[in-house]
Amino acid sequence: MNQNDLNDLKLRLRKFADERDWNQFHSPKNLSMALIGEAAELVEHFQWLTEEQSKALSSDKYNEVVLELADIFIYLIRIADKLNVDLINTAYKKIAINEQKYPVEKVKGKSKKYTEY
Amino acid sequence: MNQNDLNDLKLRLRKFADERDWNQFHSPKNLSMALIGEAAELVEHFQWLTEEQSKALSSDKYNEVVLELADIFIYLIRIADKLNVDLINTAYKKIAINEQKYPVEKVKGKSKKYTEY
Amino acid sequence: MNQNDLNDLKLRLRKFADERDWNQFHSPKNLSMALIGEAAELVEHFQWLTEEQSKALSSDKYNEVVLELADIFIYLIRIADKLNVDLINTAYKKIAINEQKYPVEKVKGKSKKYTEY
Amino acid sequence: MNQNDLNDLKLRLRKFADERDWNQFHSPKNLSMALIGEAAELVEHFQWLTEEQSKALSSDKYNEVVLELADIFIYLIRIADKLNVDLINTAYKKIAINEQKYPVEKVKGKSKKYTEY
Repeated sequence: MNQNDLNDLKLRLRKFADERDWNQFHSPKNLSMALIGEAAELVEHFQWLTEEQSKALSSDKYNEVVLELADIFIYLIRIADKLNVDLINTAYKKIAINEQKYPVEKVKGKSKKYTEY
Repeated sequence: MNQNDLNDLKLRLRKFADERDWNQFHSPKNLSMALIGEAAELVEHFQWLTEEQSKALSSDKYNEVVLELADIFIYLIRIADKLNVDLINTAYKKIAINEQKYPVEKVKGKSKKYTEY
Repeated sequence: MNQNDLNDLKLRLRKFADERDWNQFHSPKNLSMALIGEAAELVEHFQWLTEEQSKALSSDKYNEVVLELADIFIYLIRIADKLNVDLINTAYKKIAINEQKYPVEKVKGKSKKYTEY
Repeated sequence: MNQNDLNDLKLRLRKFADERDWNQFHSPKNLSMALIGEAAELVEHFQWLTEEQSKALSSDKYNEVVLELADIFIYLIRIADKLNVDLINTAYKKIAINEQKYPVEKVKGKSKKYTEY
Protein backbone atom coordinates (compact mmCIF):
# COMPACT_ATOMS: atom_id res chain seq x y z
CA MET A 1 0.00 0.00 0.00
CA ASN A 2 1.12 3.52 -0.79
CA GLN A 3 0.61 6.56 1.32
CA ASN A 4 -2.67 8.29 0.57
CA ASP A 5 -4.29 5.14 -0.77
CA LEU A 6 -7.77 6.10 0.20
CA ASN A 7 -7.35 9.59 -1.19
CA ASP A 8 -6.09 8.22 -4.51
CA LEU A 9 -9.04 5.89 -4.68
CA LYS A 10 -11.44 8.75 -4.00
CA LEU A 11 -9.90 10.74 -6.85
CA ARG A 12 -10.07 7.73 -9.17
CA LEU A 13 -13.78 7.32 -8.44
CA ARG A 14 -14.38 11.02 -8.89
CA LYS A 15 -12.78 10.79 -12.34
CA PHE A 16 -14.91 7.74 -13.19
CA ALA A 17 -18.09 9.67 -12.42
CA ASP A 18 -16.88 12.88 -14.10
CA GLU A 19 -16.03 11.10 -17.35
CA ARG A 20 -19.52 9.62 -17.48
CA ASP A 21 -21.29 12.82 -16.47
CA TRP A 22 -22.81 10.98 -13.53
CA ASN A 23 -22.55 13.69 -10.89
CA GLN A 24 -26.10 14.70 -11.75
CA PHE A 25 -27.24 11.34 -10.29
CA HIS A 26 -24.85 11.30 -7.33
CA SER A 27 -26.75 13.21 -4.68
CA PRO A 28 -26.14 11.90 -1.15
CA LYS A 29 -29.75 10.69 -1.15
CA ASN A 30 -29.29 8.62 -4.31
CA LEU A 31 -25.87 7.35 -3.29
CA SER A 32 -27.27 6.14 0.03
CA MET A 33 -29.80 4.08 -1.95
CA ALA A 34 -27.08 2.64 -4.17
CA LEU A 35 -24.98 1.81 -1.12
CA ILE A 36 -27.74 -0.09 0.64
CA GLY A 37 -28.43 -1.97 -2.58
CA GLU A 38 -24.87 -3.24 -2.56
CA ALA A 39 -25.06 -4.06 1.15
CA ALA A 40 -28.16 -6.13 0.38
CA GLU A 41 -26.34 -8.08 -2.32
CA LEU A 42 -23.79 -9.00 0.33
CA VAL A 43 -26.54 -10.05 2.73
CA GLU A 44 -28.14 -12.14 -0.01
CA HIS A 45 -25.00 -14.26 -0.29
CA PHE A 46 -25.29 -15.16 3.37
CA GLN A 47 -29.04 -15.41 3.93
CA TRP A 48 -29.44 -19.18 3.67
CA LEU A 49 -26.00 -20.04 5.05
CA THR A 50 -25.30 -20.90 8.65
CA GLU A 51 -22.82 -18.68 10.42
CA GLU A 52 -20.22 -21.43 10.09
CA GLN A 53 -20.83 -21.72 6.35
CA SER A 54 -20.42 -17.96 6.03
CA LYS A 55 -16.89 -18.35 7.39
CA ALA A 56 -15.92 -21.03 4.85
CA LEU A 57 -17.20 -19.90 1.46
CA SER A 58 -16.58 -21.82 -1.73
CA SER A 59 -14.10 -20.01 -3.94
CA ASP A 60 -16.81 -18.98 -6.44
CA LYS A 61 -18.93 -17.51 -3.71
CA TYR A 62 -15.88 -15.94 -2.09
CA ASN A 63 -14.98 -14.11 -5.28
CA GLU A 64 -18.50 -12.78 -5.60
CA VAL A 65 -18.54 -11.64 -1.98
CA VAL A 66 -15.23 -9.83 -2.45
CA LEU A 67 -16.70 -7.83 -5.32
CA GLU A 68 -19.74 -6.92 -3.24
CA LEU A 69 -17.41 -5.53 -0.58
CA ALA A 70 -15.75 -3.48 -3.32
CA ASP A 71 -19.12 -2.11 -4.44
CA ILE A 72 -20.04 -1.08 -0.91
CA PHE A 73 -16.64 0.54 -0.44
CA ILE A 74 -16.91 2.42 -3.72
CA TYR A 75 -20.27 3.96 -2.88
CA LEU A 76 -19.17 4.73 0.67
CA ILE A 77 -16.18 6.64 -0.66
CA ARG A 78 -18.39 8.48 -3.15
CA ILE A 79 -20.82 9.65 -0.47
CA ALA A 80 -17.97 10.63 1.82
CA ASP A 81 -16.44 12.62 -1.04
CA LYS A 82 -19.73 14.38 -1.81
CA LEU A 83 -20.17 15.25 1.87
CA ASN A 84 -16.51 16.15 2.45
CA VAL A 85 -16.01 13.48 5.08
CA ASP A 86 -12.63 11.98 5.97
CA LEU A 87 -13.58 8.35 6.54
CA ILE A 88 -10.48 7.37 8.50
CA ASN A 89 -10.71 10.30 10.92
CA THR A 90 -14.40 9.86 11.48
CA ALA A 91 -13.97 6.13 12.10
CA TYR A 92 -11.52 6.88 14.91
CA LYS A 93 -13.96 9.39 16.37
CA LYS A 94 -16.71 6.79 16.29
CA ILE A 95 -14.45 4.22 17.95
CA ALA A 96 -13.88 6.69 20.80
CA ILE A 97 -17.65 7.09 21.16
CA ASN A 98 -18.13 3.33 21.09
CA GLU A 99 -15.56 2.90 23.85
CA GLN A 100 -17.76 5.06 26.07
CA LYS A 101 -20.93 3.25 25.08
CA TYR A 102 -19.42 -0.20 25.42
CA PRO A 103 -16.89 -0.30 28.27
CA VAL A 104 -15.07 -3.63 28.33
CA GLU A 105 -16.01 -4.57 31.88
CA LYS A 106 -19.70 -4.11 31.15
CA VAL A 107 -20.10 -5.71 27.75
CA LYS A 108 -17.49 -8.46 27.63
CA GLY A 109 -18.92 -11.48 25.84
CA LYS A 110 -22.35 -9.88 25.49
CA SER A 111 -24.06 -8.72 22.32
CA LYS A 112 -26.73 -6.41 23.70
CA LYS A 113 -27.15 -2.91 22.34
CA TYR A 114 -25.90 -0.15 24.65
CA THR A 115 -29.48 0.96 25.28
CA GLU A 116 -30.33 -2.49 26.64
CA TYR A 117 -27.88 -2.67 29.55
CA MET B 1 -2.78 10.56 6.78
CA ASN B 2 -0.04 8.07 7.54
CA GLN B 3 0.99 5.21 5.38
CA ASN B 4 -1.03 2.09 6.17
CA ASP B 5 -3.94 4.04 7.55
CA LEU B 6 -6.49 1.49 6.61
CA ASN B 7 -4.40 -1.31 8.00
CA ASP B 8 -3.97 0.52 11.32
CA LEU B 9 -7.70 1.06 11.50
CA LYS B 10 -8.33 -2.62 10.82
CA LEU B 11 -6.00 -3.57 13.67
CA ARG B 12 -7.65 -1.04 16.00
CA LEU B 13 -11.06 -2.54 15.29
CA ARG B 14 -9.73 -6.05 15.74
CA LYS B 15 -8.45 -5.04 19.17
CA PHE B 16 -11.81 -3.47 20.04
CA ALA B 17 -13.60 -6.74 19.29
CA ASP B 18 -10.95 -8.91 20.95
CA GLU B 19 -11.08 -6.94 24.20
CA ARG B 20 -14.84 -7.39 24.34
CA ASP B 21 -14.77 -11.06 23.34
CA TRP B 22 -17.03 -10.24 20.43
CA ASN B 23 -15.46 -12.44 17.76
CA GLN B 24 -18.01 -15.09 18.66
CA PHE B 25 -20.69 -12.79 17.20
CA HIS B 26 -18.66 -11.55 14.24
CA SER B 27 -19.36 -14.17 11.58
CA PRO B 28 -19.51 -12.73 8.05
CA LYS B 29 -23.24 -13.49 8.07
CA ASN B 30 -23.86 -11.48 11.22
CA LEU B 31 -21.54 -8.65 10.20
CA SER B 32 -23.37 -8.31 6.89
CA MET B 33 -26.58 -7.80 8.89
CA ALA B 34 -24.94 -5.18 11.09
CA LEU B 35 -23.55 -3.42 8.03
CA ILE B 36 -26.89 -3.17 6.28
CA GLY B 37 -28.42 -1.88 9.51
CA GLU B 38 -25.97 1.01 9.48
CA ALA B 39 -26.57 1.62 5.77
CA ALA B 40 -30.29 1.86 6.55
CA GLU B 41 -29.67 4.46 9.25
CA LEU B 42 -27.94 6.53 6.59
CA VAL B 43 -30.87 6.06 4.20
CA GLU B 44 -33.27 7.06 6.97
CA HIS B 45 -31.62 10.48 7.23
CA PHE B 46 -32.34 11.10 3.56
CA GLN B 47 -35.72 9.44 3.04
CA TRP B 48 -37.95 12.51 3.28
CA LEU B 49 -35.41 14.99 1.90
CA THR B 50 -35.25 16.06 -1.70
CA GLU B 51 -32.00 15.39 -3.49
CA GLU B 52 -31.12 19.07 -3.17
CA GLN B 53 -31.78 19.01 0.56
CA SER B 54 -29.54 15.97 0.88
CA LYS B 55 -26.69 18.07 -0.49
CA ALA B 56 -27.19 20.88 2.04
CA LEU B 57 -27.70 19.25 5.43
CA SER B 58 -28.12 21.23 8.62
CA SER B 59 -25.06 20.91 10.83
CA ASP B 60 -26.88 18.67 13.34
CA LYS B 61 -28.00 16.34 10.61
CA TYR B 62 -24.58 16.49 8.98
CA ASN B 63 -22.87 15.37 12.18
CA GLU B 64 -25.23 12.44 12.50
CA VAL B 65 -24.72 11.45 8.88
CA VAL B 66 -20.95 11.55 9.33
CA LEU B 67 -21.20 9.08 12.21
CA GLU B 68 -23.39 6.77 10.13
CA LEU B 69 -20.69 6.74 7.46
CA ALA B 70 -18.21 5.79 10.18
CA ASP B 71 -20.42 2.92 11.32
CA ILE B 72 -20.71 1.56 7.79
CA PHE B 73 -16.97 1.87 7.30
CA ILE B 74 -16.25 0.11 10.60
CA TYR B 75 -18.39 -2.92 9.76
CA LEU B 76 -17.08 -3.03 6.21
CA ILE B 77 -13.52 -3.18 7.52
CA ARG B 78 -14.49 -5.88 10.01
CA ILE B 79 -16.03 -8.12 7.35
CA ALA B 80 -13.09 -7.53 5.04
CA ASP B 81 -10.75 -8.48 7.90
CA LYS B 82 -12.70 -11.65 8.68
CA LEU B 83 -12.67 -12.65 5.00
CA ASN B 84 -9.06 -11.58 4.39
CA VAL B 85 -9.97 -9.02 1.77
CA ASP B 86 -7.80 -6.03 0.86
CA LEU B 87 -10.44 -3.37 0.30
CA ILE B 88 -8.27 -0.96 -1.66
CA ASN B 89 -7.02 -3.62 -4.08
CA THR B 90 -10.43 -5.08 -4.62
CA ALA B 91 -11.94 -1.64 -5.24
CA TYR B 92 -9.44 -1.06 -8.07
CA LYS B 93 -10.30 -4.47 -9.52
CA LYS B 94 -13.98 -3.59 -9.43
CA ILE B 95 -13.33 -0.24 -11.10
CA ALA B 96 -11.61 -2.09 -13.96
CA ILE B 97 -14.67 -4.34 -14.30
CA ASN B 98 -16.97 -1.33 -14.21
CA GLU B 99 -14.98 0.34 -16.98
CA GLN B 100 -15.80 -2.64 -19.21
CA LYS B 101 -19.46 -2.66 -18.19
CA TYR B 102 -19.88 1.08 -18.53
CA PRO B 103 -17.75 2.43 -21.42
CA VAL B 104 -17.84 6.23 -21.46
CA GLU B 105 -19.15 6.56 -25.01
CA LYS B 106 -22.10 4.31 -24.25
CA VAL B 107 -23.24 5.51 -20.84
CA LYS B 108 -22.36 9.20 -20.73
CA GLY B 109 -25.11 11.08 -18.93
CA LYS B 110 -27.27 7.98 -18.58
CA SER B 111 -28.15 6.13 -15.40
CA LYS B 112 -29.31 2.79 -16.77
CA LYS B 113 -27.92 -0.47 -15.43
CA TYR B 114 -25.46 -2.21 -17.76
CA THR B 115 -28.01 -4.97 -18.36
CA GLU B 116 -30.47 -2.39 -19.70
CA TYR B 117 -28.44 -1.00 -22.63
CA MET C 1 -61.14 -10.32 -3.01
CA ASN C 2 -62.44 -13.21 -0.95
CA GLN C 3 -62.80 -13.31 2.76
CA ASN C 4 -59.65 -14.55 4.49
CA ASP C 5 -57.42 -13.61 1.58
CA LEU C 6 -54.37 -13.04 3.66
CA ASN C 7 -54.86 -16.24 5.58
CA ASP C 8 -55.22 -18.22 2.36
CA LEU C 9 -52.07 -16.67 1.03
CA LYS C 10 -50.21 -17.54 4.22
CA LEU C 11 -51.30 -21.17 3.88
CA ARG C 12 -50.32 -21.23 0.20
CA LEU C 13 -46.83 -20.01 1.07
CA ARG C 14 -46.56 -22.51 3.89
CA LYS C 15 -47.36 -25.28 1.43
CA PHE C 16 -44.80 -23.92 -1.04
CA ALA C 17 -42.07 -24.13 1.61
CA ASP C 18 -43.23 -27.48 2.97
CA GLU C 19 -43.18 -29.13 -0.46
CA ARG C 20 -39.61 -27.97 -0.99
CA ASP C 21 -38.44 -28.86 2.52
CA TRP C 22 -37.37 -25.26 3.01
CA ASN C 23 -38.46 -24.77 6.62
CA GLN C 24 -34.95 -25.70 7.69
CA PHE C 25 -33.80 -22.42 6.09
CA HIS C 26 -36.72 -20.29 7.21
CA SER C 27 -35.66 -19.09 10.64
CA PRO C 28 -36.85 -15.57 11.45
CA LYS C 29 -33.21 -14.46 11.24
CA ASN C 30 -32.77 -15.81 7.71
CA LEU C 31 -36.17 -14.61 6.55
CA SER C 32 -35.39 -11.09 7.75
CA MET C 33 -32.29 -11.18 5.53
CA ALA C 34 -34.31 -12.39 2.54
CA LEU C 35 -36.89 -9.69 3.15
CA ILE C 36 -34.37 -6.87 3.22
CA GLY C 37 -32.83 -8.25 0.05
CA GLU C 38 -36.16 -7.87 -1.72
CA ALA C 39 -36.66 -4.40 -0.25
CA ALA C 40 -33.27 -3.46 -1.68
CA GLU C 41 -34.26 -4.65 -5.14
CA LEU C 42 -37.18 -2.27 -4.91
CA VAL C 43 -34.90 0.56 -3.83
CA GLU C 44 -32.55 -0.23 -6.70
CA HIS C 45 -35.31 0.47 -9.22
CA PHE C 46 -35.71 3.96 -7.80
CA GLN C 47 -32.16 4.96 -6.91
CA TRP C 48 -31.31 7.04 -9.99
CA LEU C 49 -34.84 8.27 -10.63
CA THR C 50 -36.19 11.58 -9.44
CA GLU C 51 -39.23 11.43 -7.18
CA GLU C 52 -41.38 12.49 -10.12
CA GLN C 53 -39.97 9.75 -12.32
CA SER C 54 -40.71 7.22 -9.58
CA LYS C 55 -44.38 8.16 -9.88
CA ALA C 56 -44.50 7.61 -13.64
CA LEU C 57 -42.66 4.39 -14.38
CA SER C 58 -42.38 2.89 -17.85
CA SER C 59 -44.52 -0.20 -18.16
CA ASP C 60 -41.47 -2.53 -18.18
CA LYS C 61 -40.13 -0.97 -15.02
CA TYR C 62 -43.59 -0.95 -13.48
CA ASN C 63 -44.00 -4.68 -14.03
CA GLU C 64 -40.67 -5.35 -12.39
CA VAL C 65 -41.51 -3.11 -9.44
CA VAL C 66 -44.82 -4.92 -8.95
CA LEU C 67 -43.00 -8.24 -8.67
CA GLU C 68 -40.59 -6.78 -6.11
CA LEU C 69 -43.56 -5.73 -4.00
CA ALA C 70 -44.82 -9.30 -4.25
CA ASP C 71 -41.47 -10.65 -3.09
CA ILE C 72 -41.43 -8.35 -0.09
CA PHE C 73 -45.00 -9.29 0.77
CA ILE C 74 -44.25 -13.01 0.47
CA TYR C 75 -41.33 -12.89 2.89
CA LEU C 76 -43.22 -10.62 5.26
CA ILE C 77 -46.07 -13.14 5.42
CA ARG C 78 -43.59 -15.97 5.95
CA ILE C 79 -41.90 -14.27 8.91
CA ALA C 80 -45.26 -13.31 10.38
CA ASP C 81 -46.37 -16.94 10.03
CA LYS C 82 -43.22 -18.25 11.70
CA LEU C 83 -43.64 -15.79 14.57
CA ASN C 84 -47.42 -16.22 14.84
CA VAL C 85 -48.17 -12.61 14.09
CA ASP C 86 -51.48 -11.38 12.67
CA LEU C 87 -50.29 -8.67 10.29
CA ILE C 88 -53.60 -6.87 9.95
CA ASN C 89 -54.19 -6.64 13.70
CA THR C 90 -50.70 -5.53 14.45
CA ALA C 91 -50.85 -2.87 11.72
CA TYR C 92 -53.89 -1.34 13.39
CA LYS C 93 -52.08 -1.41 16.74
CA LYS C 94 -49.13 0.38 15.19
CA ILE C 95 -51.39 2.98 13.60
CA ALA C 96 -52.80 3.74 17.06
CA ILE C 97 -49.27 4.19 18.39
CA ASN C 98 -48.38 6.42 15.44
CA GLU C 99 -51.41 8.60 16.11
CA GLN C 100 -49.98 9.32 19.55
CA LYS C 101 -46.49 9.95 18.21
CA TYR C 102 -47.66 12.11 15.34
CA PRO C 103 -50.71 14.18 16.33
CA VAL C 104 -52.14 16.00 13.31
CA GLU C 105 -51.87 19.48 14.77
CA LYS C 106 -48.17 19.03 15.50
CA VAL C 107 -46.90 17.30 12.37
CA LYS C 108 -49.11 18.54 9.57
CA GLY C 109 -47.01 19.06 6.44
CA LYS C 110 -43.79 18.21 8.26
CA SER C 111 -41.57 15.18 7.75
CA LYS C 112 -39.53 15.20 10.93
CA LYS C 113 -39.19 12.09 13.06
CA TYR C 114 -41.20 12.17 16.30
CA THR C 115 -37.96 12.40 18.28
CA GLU C 116 -37.08 15.62 16.47
CA TYR C 117 -40.04 17.79 17.43
CA MET D 1 -61.09 -11.05 9.81
CA ASN D 2 -63.60 -9.23 7.68
CA GLN D 3 -63.84 -9.30 3.96
CA ASN D 4 -61.73 -6.57 2.40
CA ASP D 5 -59.41 -6.34 5.37
CA LEU D 6 -56.44 -5.31 3.37
CA ASN D 7 -58.47 -2.76 1.45
CA ASP D 8 -59.78 -1.24 4.69
CA LEU D 9 -56.26 -1.01 6.02
CA LYS D 10 -55.08 0.68 2.84
CA LEU D 11 -57.86 3.28 3.19
CA ARG D 12 -57.02 3.80 6.85
CA LEU D 13 -53.39 4.50 5.98
CA ARG D 14 -54.41 6.80 3.15
CA LYS D 15 -56.48 8.80 5.62
CA PHE D 16 -53.58 8.92 8.08
CA ALA D 17 -51.33 10.46 5.42
CA ASP D 18 -54.02 12.78 4.06
CA GLU D 19 -54.79 14.23 7.50
CA ARG D 20 -51.11 15.02 8.00
CA ASP D 21 -50.56 16.38 4.49
CA TRP D 22 -47.85 13.79 3.99
CA ASN D 23 -48.57 12.82 0.39
CA GLN D 24 -45.99 15.37 -0.70
CA PHE D 25 -43.34 13.13 0.91
CA HIS D 26 -44.81 9.81 -0.21
CA SER D 27 -43.32 9.31 -3.64
CA PRO D 28 -42.58 5.65 -4.45
CA LYS D 29 -38.88 6.52 -4.26
CA ASN D 30 -39.15 7.91 -0.74
CA LEU D 31 -41.49 5.17 0.44
CA SER D 32 -39.05 2.52 -0.77
CA MET D 33 -36.42 4.16 1.45
CA ALA D 34 -38.76 4.19 4.44
CA LEU D 35 -39.63 0.55 3.82
CA ILE D 36 -36.04 -0.63 3.75
CA GLY D 37 -35.39 1.35 6.91
CA GLU D 38 -38.07 -0.65 8.69
CA ALA D 39 -36.77 -3.90 7.22
CA ALA D 40 -33.36 -3.02 8.62
CA GLU D 41 -34.79 -2.48 12.10
CA LEU D 42 -36.14 -6.01 11.89
CA VAL D 43 -32.75 -7.32 10.78
CA GLU D 44 -31.10 -5.45 13.64
CA HIS D 45 -33.12 -7.44 16.18
CA PHE D 46 -31.71 -10.67 14.77
CA GLN D 47 -28.16 -9.74 13.85
CA TRP D 48 -26.38 -11.11 16.91
CA LEU D 49 -28.81 -13.95 17.58
CA THR D 50 -28.33 -17.50 16.38
CA GLU D 51 -31.04 -18.87 14.14
CA GLU D 52 -32.35 -20.87 17.09
CA GLN D 53 -32.49 -17.79 19.29
CA SER D 54 -34.42 -15.97 16.57
CA LYS D 55 -37.12 -18.62 16.87
CA ALA D 56 -37.47 -18.20 20.63
CA LEU D 57 -37.50 -14.49 21.37
CA SER D 58 -37.98 -13.07 24.83
CA SER D 59 -41.38 -11.45 25.18
CA ASP D 60 -39.91 -7.92 25.16
CA LYS D 61 -37.99 -8.60 22.00
CA TYR D 62 -40.99 -10.37 20.50
CA ASN D 63 -43.20 -7.34 21.04
CA GLU D 64 -40.66 -5.09 19.38
CA VAL D 65 -40.29 -7.44 16.44
CA VAL D 66 -44.06 -7.54 15.97
CA LEU D 67 -44.14 -3.76 15.68
CA GLU D 68 -41.34 -3.80 13.11
CA LEU D 69 -43.40 -6.21 11.02
CA ALA D 70 -46.28 -3.75 11.28
CA ASP D 71 -44.06 -0.90 10.09
CA ILE D 72 -42.88 -2.88 7.08
CA PHE D 73 -46.46 -3.86 6.26
CA ILE D 74 -47.65 -0.26 6.55
CA TYR D 75 -45.07 1.10 4.12
CA LEU D 76 -45.59 -1.82 1.75
CA ILE D 77 -49.31 -1.06 1.61
CA ARG D 78 -48.59 2.63 1.06
CA ILE D 79 -46.29 1.99 -1.90
CA ALA D 80 -48.74 -0.51 -3.35
CA ASP D 81 -51.49 2.08 -2.99
CA LYS D 82 -49.43 4.79 -4.67
CA LEU D 83 -48.59 2.43 -7.54
CA ASN D 84 -52.07 0.93 -7.80
CA VAL D 85 -50.90 -2.59 -7.04
CA ASP D 86 -53.15 -5.31 -5.62
CA LEU D 87 -50.75 -7.05 -3.25
CA ILE D 88 -52.72 -10.28 -2.90
CA ASN D 89 -53.12 -10.79 -6.65
CA THR D 90 -49.55 -9.98 -7.41
CA ALA D 91 -48.34 -12.35 -4.69
CA TYR D 92 -50.21 -15.22 -6.35
CA LYS D 93 -48.69 -14.27 -9.70
CA LYS D 94 -45.24 -14.32 -8.17
CA ILE D 95 -45.89 -17.70 -6.57
CA ALA D 96 -46.77 -19.07 -10.03
CA ILE D 97 -43.47 -17.71 -11.36
CA ASN D 98 -41.58 -19.18 -8.41
CA GLU D 99 -43.12 -22.58 -9.08
CA GLN D 100 -41.53 -22.52 -12.53
CA LYS D 101 -38.20 -21.29 -11.21
CA TYR D 102 -38.11 -23.73 -8.32
CA PRO D 103 -39.71 -27.06 -9.31
CA VAL D 104 -40.03 -29.34 -6.28
CA GLU D 105 -38.05 -32.25 -7.73
CA LYS D 106 -35.10 -29.99 -8.48
CA VAL D 107 -34.84 -27.86 -5.37
CA LYS D 108 -36.13 -30.03 -2.55
CA GLY D 109 -34.03 -29.43 0.56
CA LYS D 110 -31.67 -27.07 -1.28
CA SER D 111 -31.27 -23.34 -0.78
CA LYS D 112 -29.50 -22.34 -3.98
CA LYS D 113 -30.79 -19.49 -6.10
CA TYR D 114 -32.50 -20.57 -9.32
CA THR D 115 -29.60 -19.15 -11.34
CA GLU D 116 -27.20 -21.49 -9.54
CA TYR D 117 -28.71 -24.85 -10.49
